[in-house]
This record gives sequence, C-alpha cells and structure tokens, in this order.
Amino acid sequence: MITVLAGGVGAARYLAGLLQIVDADDITAIVNTGDDTWLHGLRVCPDLDTITYTLAGAVNPETGWGLVGETWVALGELRAYEEARAWFALGDRDIGTHLYRTGRLAEGATLTDITAGITRRWGLDLRLVPMTEDEVATRFTLADGGEEIGFQDYFVGHHHSVAVSAVRFAGIDSATPSPGVLDAIAAATRIVVAPSNPIVSIGPVLAVPGIRDAIAARRDDVVAVSPIIAGGTVKGPADRLLVELGHEASVVGVARLYADVVGTLVIDDADAHLADDVEAEGVRCVVAPTLMHGPPESAALARVTLA
Amino acid sequence: MITVLAGGVGAARYLAGLLQIVDADDITAIVNTGDDTWLHGLRVCPDLDTITYTLAGAVNPETGWGLVGETWVALGELRAYEEARAWFALGDRDIGTHLYRTGRLAEGATLTDITAGITRRWGLDLRLVPMTEDEVATRFTLADGGEEIGFQDYFVGHHHSVAVSAVRFAGIDSATPSPGVLDAIAAATRIVVAPSNPIVSIGPVLAVPGIRDAIAARRDDVVAVSPIIAGGTVKGPADRLLVELGHEASVVGVARLYADVVGTLVIDDADAHLADDVEAEGVRCVVAPTLMHGPPESAALARVTLA
Repeated sequence: MITVLAGGVGAARYLAGLLQIVDADDITAIVNTGDDTWLHGLRVCPDLDTITYTLAGAVNPETGWGLVGETWVALGELRAYEEARAWFALGDRDIGTHLYRTGRLAEGATLTDITAGITRRWGLDLRLVPMTEDEVATRFTLADGGEEIGFQDYFVGHHHSVAVSAVRFAGIDSATPSPGVLDAIAAATRIVVAPSNPIVSIGPVLAVPGIRDAIAARRDDVVAVSPIIAGGTVKGPADRLLVELGHEASVVGVARLYADVVGTLVIDDADAHLADDVEAEGVRCVVAPTLMHGPPESAALARVTLA
Repeated sequence: MITVLAGGVGAARYLAGLLQIVDADDITAIVNTGDDTWLHGLRVCPDLDTITYTLAGAVNPETGWGLVGETWVALGELRAYEEARAWFALGDRDIGTHLYRTGRLAEGATLTDITAGITRRWGLDLRLVPMTEDEVATRFTLADGGEEIGFQDYFVGHHHSVAVSAVRFAGIDSATPSPGVLDAIAAATRIVVAPSNPIVSIGPVLAVPGIRDAIAARRDDVVAVSPIIAGGTVKGPADRLLVELGHEASVVGVARLYADVVGTLVIDDADAHLADDVEAEGVRCVVAPTLMHGPPESAALARVTLA
C-alpha cells in the first residue's frame, strides 16, 4: 500500500509512473484542494481533475491540464456577455465534470464520494482522496500593495507572475482530513510526497490539522521528490514563491521545509553536488533522474521512490 | 408604454410582434420565474431566456427554446458520468448564459440587473423584468400517488404527460415584485397578458403579492390573449392542466380565470361562437386570428391587443 501526497501536474506524472509498477488498488493519493474554487456557480477542483485526466490519458498534452479535444463554446458565450468574466479557461468537456461535481455537492454528496464517481467514469482504479471535505482556499498577499487574492486569481489571472509576501490557507484551522486519509497514512508501506509545489500544493495537505503529525509519525517511510531542479522548476512558480517567502529555491530549501516529515529526499542528478547539504538538514538524500519526459522516466522515478 | 405579463414561447412570439409596431423603449415584459431552477449548481431561467433568445433571432427554431447552432459537449460529458443526470437539455451556448447569470448572482447582483445584462448582450432594447427577485418554484402534486415534483421535473422529466391534482408556487408568500414591476403596471397605457399558460406561466406572476391587485386596478386597460384555441393549445399542457385542476379548457375557462384582472380577452377565430359566453363572464371579447405562424401574424395580433 503506497500513499502519495499530491498536487497537480507533477504529481499526476509521478502517479502515472507509479501505476506502471504498482497495482492501482494499492495506491491512495491524498490530493490538495486548496486550489479549489467556485467559478460561475460551479465547483472546480484543479488538482483532482488534472490527476484524473492525466491518468486517464485524456489530459491536454500541450497544457498539462484540461481535456484533450476540448471545445470552448460556453466560454465564448460567457465572453460575449462580459470579456473579463472569461478569464479562467473552462472547456465544455471540463464543464461536464464540474456540472457533475456541483450537482452532487448540492445534493449533499461528499467530495470524496464524488471524486470516486469521477475516477470510476475515467476507468481509474487507484484511490484519489481530497485532503479534506471542508472548503479550504489558498490565498496570496501581494508584495506590492498588500492586497490578498485567491489562488486562481494568482495562478491564472496574474499568470503567477506577481511577487507575494504571504500565503495562507483560509479555512484550514477548522478542516478535518477526509475519511480514510489518516488510515491511508497509517497503513502505507511507503508514503511519497510527489514533486509538487511545497508551498501551495503539498503545503495545504500538510496543514490540514492531523495530517502533518500523522506523516511525521511515519517519517522513516516518507520519501519526497524535490520539485526544484537546479534551483528552478519544470512548471509553475515554486522557485519564486520559495524565495519570496524567505526560503531557498534549491533542494536544500526543500529539505529544510520537509525535514520534520520526510525521511528521504530524491533530488535530480543536476543537484548531485548538493546531496551532502541535503543530508546536513537531517534528511537522507537519493540522487536520480527526476525529469519525467514520458512514461519510462515516470516509472523509473516511481521505482526510485519505492526502493 | 406597454406592459406585458409573459411566460415562455407564446409570450416570446407575441413580444416579437409587438416590437414590430411599438418602440422597444416603450415595452416592459414582466416575466414568470416560477419555472426557474438550480441545475448542477447553475441558475436556469427558462422563460427569461426563451424570450431573450427569440427576440434576438437566436432561438432554436425547431424547439422554440434554446439557442440555434447549439452544441452538447458538456451534457455529453455529464451523461458519461451518470446518464440520469443529463435529463435536462443544457447546450454549451446556453450554459454560457447560465454561467454569466450564476456568477453574477453569487456576487450579489440582482436578477433584474443580470437580466438587463443578458438582454443588452443580445442587442434588445425592451425591458425584461423577472416578476420577482425572490426564488419562487412552481410545484406539481401528481394525481397518481400524491408526490410533489418541481416544474422542470414535470415539464421536461415527465414531458408534462402525467396528471396533476394541484399546483403551488413555493416561496410566493414572501416574494415581492421586482423593482419597477408595480410602476410598469401603474404607468402602462395598455397591459397585455400574453398567450401563455394561465396556470403555470401567468399564474405565478399574478400570485406575487401586490401584482394581482395592481393589475386588477388597471382592469379596463388589460387585454389578454387566450392561449387556448378550440379547446387545445399550440404547445404545452395548458389545456390538460386546466381540466385537471377543475377549470374548463376553453376560452370561457380562460375568461373565468382572468375575469377579475382582465377587461378584454382576445380569442381566436376558431372560437368565435364562444364570444357571447366569454362576455357572459363579464369580459369584453375580441375575435381575431391568434395563431402566430411568423412575424406578420405576430404583428397583427399585437395590433389587435393595442386597438
């Protein structure tokens, strides 16, 4: 039984590799929901959907999110009403997912059950679990002016290109882990922290009361993959966010952030010279190729995390 | 200044005729919202949208509702999740409207303002006003078994082909007329009750506290067009509903229902032999062609109602 703490694109690719070498039934992914948002009345869960679409082989290969063969009719109409309202790319196929999720939420279904319905439709056998059933919203304070904005406003509206002075997870204090989350952590033979943004993807998962302690109690069996390679990221703003929030945009910075919960950090060959510095943070260091160009690299990385 | 009480398709066609002979700026339509519903998290307002799309020349000519050139991608995806959930035809273009409306509702905009935004996008200059800003839901008690169901469940889910023993408008007691509604009634030189279902289209409008009295006070200037022609309807279940609820499915039955608020009833040539019976109900009767096959007939009918 393998349990994975997961954000979006990086986690999806890691999980695709893991599925090549482990039975899907033995995999539980605990997924960040801090990016989730209400858009035009619909509940949108970017990380859950990115993982689902990726593992189903249905993700748009050019963007890494959204569905392949997507159409944009509804968004075009929304734009005709008010250009500014169409800032978030909601494709028609993707809207089908949001309609299903929002309709079931309105009927009182839990996000965990709804997510199981979504993965079933896509033929997935692993277990995707939102970190919490409660609404948590990652929010950013802008360095310039101090305005606080939501995750999607930062990520999509501002293309994550504005400096940030603080991040918080609104609602986290009263959130509880989804049913099965703590069990999946306790029962895992290996816990993997996927190569996702440590601040805004893994950060919210660890911040759900109870999860960080549960992971820390399994520290020797916890392996993280650094999303930082040679001081940068494959995708997204993790490197800039780390610096803006006073951390180091390096595998050493990642090791420091995770030191209390992670026993082993996998870093890329490009950072081999920093292995000793990682271990100096009290974290065992494994050096391996971590770039996932395709299925073979994903599977190889998965093998490293289970070794 | 002409004020029209309006339901869906019949009212849309009547208004299309009225727009040919009266300045759009001089027309206010007070529209039924009892059919409105929440679907998968989206706020759907069938009568408002049918009127808008029809007057914009964008309505699907084959159905009389929905948009021409519609696509069904989102609904197809919803069906893939759960067949039964896709019972209501939500096209992708139409979803654009619902996203706009629901998003603005979530931000606190009023349905009146949102509707003005929608008609503006479609280039309409008449004023469409929801009968109320409050949520009112038309509900049907099934004759067989006594179960109560919502309007769309009756109309779409059951294709309005089940017998009904009662109709009520949930929420109506605490509803108030939208801003401008009572003024539009007081200021009108002519008030027209469009050829819409008297029970479930015009019924809810008149049932909003304050509206029936306001219309009754203008009774001499109120002209209704009978939606019943030769005991039947052009579209929809008005004839059966009238009978099931103890009324007569005839122009006389319509006259009786409207007698307290309507000074004149326009009936179709096919019902000319019932003109005296209509007048016996205390309602002046005008006989004219009321079938609206196209723009000329709609304009001619509009002329009759203003004569």
